[in-house]
Amino acid sequence: MPPTEMYGALTPAVTPFHADMRPDAERLEQHCRWLLSQGAGLAVFGTNSEGNSLSVEEKIALLDHLVGAGIPPARMMPGTGHCAITDSARLTRHAVSLGCAGVLLLPPFYYKAVTDEGIFRAIAHVVDAVNDDRLKVYLYHIPPFAQVGFSLDLIERLIRAYPGIIAGIKDSSGDFANTRALLVRFPGWGVFCGNEANLVEARRMGAAGCISAICNVNPGAIARLADSWDAPDAAEQQARAAAIRKIIAGFPMIAALKALVSRFTEEPAWLRVRPPLEPLDDRQRHTLFEQMDALGFSMADGDRVDA
Amino acid sequence: MPPTEMYGALTPAVTPFHADMRPDAERLEQHCRWLLSQGAGLAVFGTNSEGNSLSVEEKIALLDHLVGAGIPPARMMPGTGHCAITDSARLTRHAVSLGCAGVLLLPPFYYKAVTDEGIFRAIAHVVDAVNDDRLKVYLYHIPPFAQVGFSLDLIERLIRAYPGIIAGIKDSSGDFANTRALLVRFPGWGVFCGNEANLVEARRMGAAGCISAICNVNPGAIARLADSWDAPDAAEQQARAAAIRKIIAGFPMIAALKALVSRFTEEPAWLRVRPPLEPLDDRQRHTLFEQMDALGFSMADGDRVDA
Repeated sequence: MPPTEMYGALTPAVTPFHADMRPDAERLEQHCRWLLSQGAGLAVFGTNSEGNSLSVEEKIALLDHLVGAGIPPARMMPGTGHCAITDSARLTRHAVSLGCAGVLLLPPFYYKAVTDEGIFRAIAHVVDAVNDDRLKVYLYHIPPFAQVGFSLDLIERLIRAYPGIIAGIKDSSGDFANTRALLVRFPGWGVFCGNEANLVEARRMGAAGCISAICNVNPGAIARLADSWDAPDAAEQQARAAAIRKIIAGFPMIAALKALVSRFTEEPAWLRVRPPLEPLDDRQRHTLFEQMDALGFSMADGDRVDA
Repeated sequence: MPPTEMYGALTPAVTPFHADMRPDAERLEQHCRWLLSQGAGLAVFGTNSEGNSLSVEEKIALLDHLVGAGIPPARMMPGTGHCAITDSARLTRHAVSLGCAGVLLLPPFYYKAVTDEGIFRAIAHVVDAVNDDRLKVYLYHIPPFAQVGFSLDLIERLIRAYPGIIAGIKDSSGDFANTRALLVRFPGWGVFCGNEANLVEARRMGAAGCISAICNVNPGAIARLADSWDAPDAAEQQARAAAIRKIIAGFPMIAALKALVSRFTEEPAWLRVRPPLEPLDDRQRHTLFEQMDALGFSMADGDRVDA
């Protein structure tokens, strides 16, 4: 058993909203319970959670609700990175105080063309401000959104400066060569793939698992895939997960995930997304459902189509 | 006299920090007083203010300090846009409650490839949440940083939906053709150039003025330029301002501005920038000062070199 439960498949759980666009804590709690029941951990407030469309106060209130309701913080890695290092420090400190096993930390992402030195200082400021041995930082590398990212040399510098605290990374570069390079250079470190597309190969190389948007609708299969990377049918499982992913990725991701959760739970409230995002229109939703049905996919049975 | 004092040259005032990186409200107040004395208005919390490296709470505290100290809110257009519409609404509401003449509103900028419809809903959410007739929104169009921006059609839709409230724009596209297109399509609207490089031509076409980083060090000359666009020596003034700008733009902008303010005020504290930014190194600073000296530039005399 590793020191934390941060391995396997983690879900950037989608965030439900009330009609007035306030976050819906109860509905999020229900979704998190279902994800845990399927074997997936919780990376709430990720990109696909619309985490960057929520204020620090909203995220603190949601975390308090989830932990208060009995969702185990040992299975949680909330996103805590903001443009302002004071915001990142505040939310990170709160997550640690609640016992969250880790945090997923974006670098400040408004100012572009910043240096490794500048990003190092930003991360160091957060770690020093939190100043708690329980802190486990997973660097959130997602240049397609943040533009700003973590180079291999910067990562090495951070690990050396804060051993045991800089615990891993989520690599959402979209470039599996970068994930491979991370696994080769930092063996035994907590490398998570940004999705499940290359999970089997990554696990063979020592990856901790994946943090994937698709876990919101296919958590059981992806959690099994993370565990059974050396099973005889691993390639088959990987291909199946890839086929499901391919369909969903053909639509605006967050809106598509929410459409599928809404259909599964029979709760139209799940369709809401916060501006600047938009829900799928009726036609997109219909096409998405048709394509998923054609694949024989069902959220109800954990996509155990061969069972 | 226009209904607000939002015209001429406005300054995205640089933000000073204490040694522990807390914002230094007293030093900011002094800088704002000097800018006003030179004829420039205050667009605090802009990009060059490191506004996006400050939390909502820090910005509220700074605004409260400035207005409490007697800095006239009628001369202020604070930046209030964040990734989360709830943060933008909160800070905008506070600025309006203090009597600020306008706010400079970034669209949510984390999620990329969003639609005009999505941005419209985000801005509408903020305006509706603030729900105050005194609100004057200046759209902050700065694709080089935000990636997300305001198309001409989206602007027209916003003006029609909220006449008198969507009061203008700062065009920091870096493309003067876009500024021209705005001035042609929305005559009489509050169009501010993102810098002073084409201020004379823009004013001839009806622009309200400019919001320029360089105002931090050259406010008097830029404020005069905004006023005297039809004076016989306008072209000469424009060329002089451009020469000053060109030197500073050769360095990381915010760090260079702070180096010049630090030299002028003889306060080393001004050199501090918040991570992820970095201060100039000694060599850069020396080179910057040499180049400005060679141009005969001095902050002390408001760059009235020919006076």
